[in-house]
Amino acid sequence: MSSTVGKVIRCKAAVAWEAGKPLVIEQVEVAPPQAMEVRVKILITALCHTDVYFWETKGQTPVFPRIFGHEAAGIVESIGEGVTELKPGDHVLPIFTGECKECQHCKSEESNMCDLLRINTDRGVMLNDGKSRFSINGKPIYHFLGTSTFSEYTVVHVGCLAKINPAAPLDKVCILSCGLGATLNVAKPQKGSSVAIFGLGAVGLAAAEGARIAGASRIIGVDLNPSRFQQAKNFGVTEFVNPKDYDKVLIEMTGGGVDRSVECSGSFRAMISAFECVHDGWGVAVLVGVPNKDDAFKTHPMNFLNERTLKGTFFGNYKPRTDIPNVVEMYMRKELELEKFITHDVSLSEINKSFDYMLQGESLRGIIRMDA
Amino acid sequence: MSSTVGKVIRCKAAVAWEAGKPLVIEQVEVAPPQAMEVRVKILITALCHTDVYFWETKGQTPVFPRIFGHEAAGIVESIGEGVTELKPGDHVLPIFTGECKECQHCKSEESNMCDLLRINTDRGVMLNDGKSRFSINGKPIYHFLGTSTFSEYTVVHVGCLAKINPAAPLDKVCILSCGLGATLNVAKPQKGSSVAIFGLGAVGLAAAEGARIAGASRIIGVDLNPSRFQQAKNFGVTEFVNPKDYDKVLIEMTGGGVDRSVECSGSFRAMISAFECVHDGWGVAVLVGVPNKDDAFKTHPMNFLNERTLKGTFFGNYKPRTDIPNVVEMYMRKELELEKFITHDVSLSEINKSFDYMLQGESLRGIIRMDA
Ligand SMILES: NC(=O)c1ccc[n+]([C@@H]2O[C@H](COP(=O)([O-])OP(=O)(O)OC[C@H]3O[C@@H](n4cnc5c(N)ncnc54)[C@H](O)[C@@H]3O)[C@@H](O)[C@H]2O)c1
Ligand SMILES: NC(=O)c1ccc[n+]([C@@H]2O[C@H](COP(=O)([O-])OP(=O)(O)OC[C@H]3O[C@@H](n4cnc5c(N)ncnc54)[C@H](O)[C@@H]3O)[C@@H](O)[C@H]2O)c1
Ligand SMILES: [Zn+2]
Ligand SMILES: [Zn+2]
Ligand SMILES: [Zn+2]
Ligand SMILES: [Zn+2]
Repeated sequence: MSSTVGKVIRCKAAVAWEAGKPLVIEQVEVAPPQAMEVRVKILITALCHTDVYFWETKGQTPVFPRIFGHEAAGIVESIGEGVTELKPGDHVLPIFTGECKECQHCKSEESNMCDLLRINTDRGVMLNDGKSRFSINGKPIYHFLGTSTFSEYTVVHVGCLAKINPAAPLDKVCILSCGLGATLNVAKPQKGSSVAIFGLGAVGLAAAEGARIAGASRIIGVDLNPSRFQQAKNFGVTEFVNPKDYDKVLIEMTGGGVDRSVECSGSFRAMISAFECVHDGWGVAVLVGVPNKDDAFKTHPMNFLNERTLKGTFFGNYKPRTDIPNVVEMYMRKELELEKFITHDVSLSEINKSFDYMLQGESLRGIIRMDA
Repeated sequence: MSSTVGKVIRCKAAVAWEAGKPLVIEQVEVAPPQAMEVRVKILITALCHTDVYFWETKGQTPVFPRIFGHEAAGIVESIGEGVTELKPGDHVLPIFTGECKECQHCKSEESNMCDLLRINTDRGVMLNDGKSRFSINGKPIYHFLGTSTFSEYTVVHVGCLAKINPAAPLDKVCILSCGLGATLNVAKPQKGSSVAIFGLGAVGLAAAEGARIAGASRIIGVDLNPSRFQQAKNFGVTEFVNPKDYDKVLIEMTGGGVDRSVECSGSFRAMISAFECVHDGWGVAVLVGVPNKDDAFKTHPMNFLNERTLKGTFFGNYKPRTDIPNVVEMYMRKELELEKFITHDVSLSEINKSFDYMLQGESLRGIIRMDA
């Protein structure tokens, strides 16, 4: 048993003191895990747009000082009371949404929107005592999405940890993103079908990867930014459309509409187009992008009556503990490719570089190594 | 072989000479069936709201003189060239939408929106030669929905005829309506689940019958007109809500939302409510009601992201030739009840009474007997 069990751990973390200001590498204190909590040694973390949005705080509630980071891989250091499914040494992925296995959502086969551990972007504390496990000289530093992976050690609710194959390379499987499940679990394209992807960021490209895995014969990428097209070719995207000039283009180029579409842009205009471009009779559109507060989805009801389906998904309908270990196995069987998502690799001390790359639009997923 | 084969048949039909004016029983001439057509002796027909809408012609293209009627049962009198699946004497149900078995929709397992024989409310002629098979003294009388069943004989495309069990009572199975399939094929409620039905006309009550057959434990009826509630009790509807005062009532009374909802009112307000009242995580809403031209479906996209699904259906996703014979078998096995839908029974000479009952809101389905 590790000598740190039950004690406060002092380690390095990248702290965001203020909205939009560079992170500062600080020595933080990480309290031991309480009931149903697990302390995890983070080895690798990744930077995702969601971290950047909440760090910039455009519209969102500011919660500072805060430790960001929600895509990562690590090893269990110690467990709190009541934790039976994990033990020190287990390899885990922290996930920004959880699975308590007790609520009506967790018990439903169809939902992954756990009542207890559903994503909460405003909460900066742990559920057990409403307090943070991070501090500097007694001053609390807040959590982010229950994960806060920009730290050498973090404390996570057991329901937000997927236990994975210890043979899996942590610097690859840390970046599983939502788009994949949106295509594989929700849009479910048949082999040989056509799939349109709206928005070719990391989420959209993961959706394209899902379409490739499902055996789609045409994967059509739609993005306002034509510089996204070159990169998207590595993800099996075969044709490109710029929404500025598509209008009815998608319907024409597919003889009546695509079989499936997946919207990964966050633009309500793209959401409407993604729905209206699917084929009548069988078309399914899936929304992944997070809209603004005042956006409205608007269409003529006849578009539904002509047998089109519209669904949304959250984390690709994956249940974190039940399903994510299997996604890791897909990678191990070489069905899923992850390397092509990783565009940068830096050490924790250089984490602000990773933010710069993302803000410049040069990054899909930047990897941050804690031990470097 | 009947002596009428290949000859014009003179028979009685109820002709609508002008929009909104009482039908007149006339002696009409019915030409023999052409290629891929079948001439059917109608024994029983029913009156449905759709006949009344197009007879009133509020907004729709006026096509007169016309023979209405699209829900009926009869016997094949003779067949045209190329018809191999039917022979004189077969029992058939004419259907207002067809199944050619050749187009991409017919070949798709998911769609019933046949490219060739999809419902066309404006067309008053047969596809083969663009002409009507009905006439009076050489003057054409137009068809309605390719069925025109308010006539002792009619000519129908073979793709719009379901061949049924000859033991089935024609005065019952003539009234299969859309709501049933909307619930059984599209909403697919699990046993023990809750289902809300918006609009308790014949279509909504058929949707309720579908929910009863599927084993729903709560069937909640929503209608502006409280007089609909009494009748709905015979259809397994267990609770009632008036949309004037429901607002969040449905969500409260079900602890988060219903598992499934089926909208059968045609009101875009009901469509939006039907979607927003389903449970996050797994709720599915199905639209059946036909909206007005300028209606818009509008909701916040987050309602989709929280894992709700919205679909529309046309004729309950049934493929007329493939699936309707099986619905008749459901009735024969006593799984499906049809008697309770029939509120009136008149002879062809009294057909205008049936219109009056429907306009007064007293009728669900009125049966019209041709031989009486
Ligand atoms: N539902 C979920 O569980 C979930 C999880 C993570 C992220 N997301 C959301 O997914 C979306 C995509 O995330 P990302 O990291 O890939 O973002 P990103 O910014 O890298 O990519 C978005 C892309 O959409 C393009 N775009 C913008 N407007 C468009 C339009 N009208 N038509 C076509 N393309 C348009 C942009 O040019 C950009 O390339 C975001 O809204 C994010 O919040 C959802
Ligand atoms: N999709 C299809 O294949 C298909 C086929 C046949 C009929 N339809 C449509 O189904 C709908 C119902 O047909 P019907 O014959 O049962 O009609 P109906 O007029 O008998 O019944 C409609 C009911 O809806 C109620 N209603 C109206 N506005 C409402 C609201 N805002 N909230 C709740 N209830 C409301 C009315 O009071 C009425 O009781 C019509 O729109 C019809 O055109 C669709
Ligand atoms: Zn992310
Ligand atoms: Zn739960
Ligand atoms: Zn009808
Ligand atoms: Zn067809």
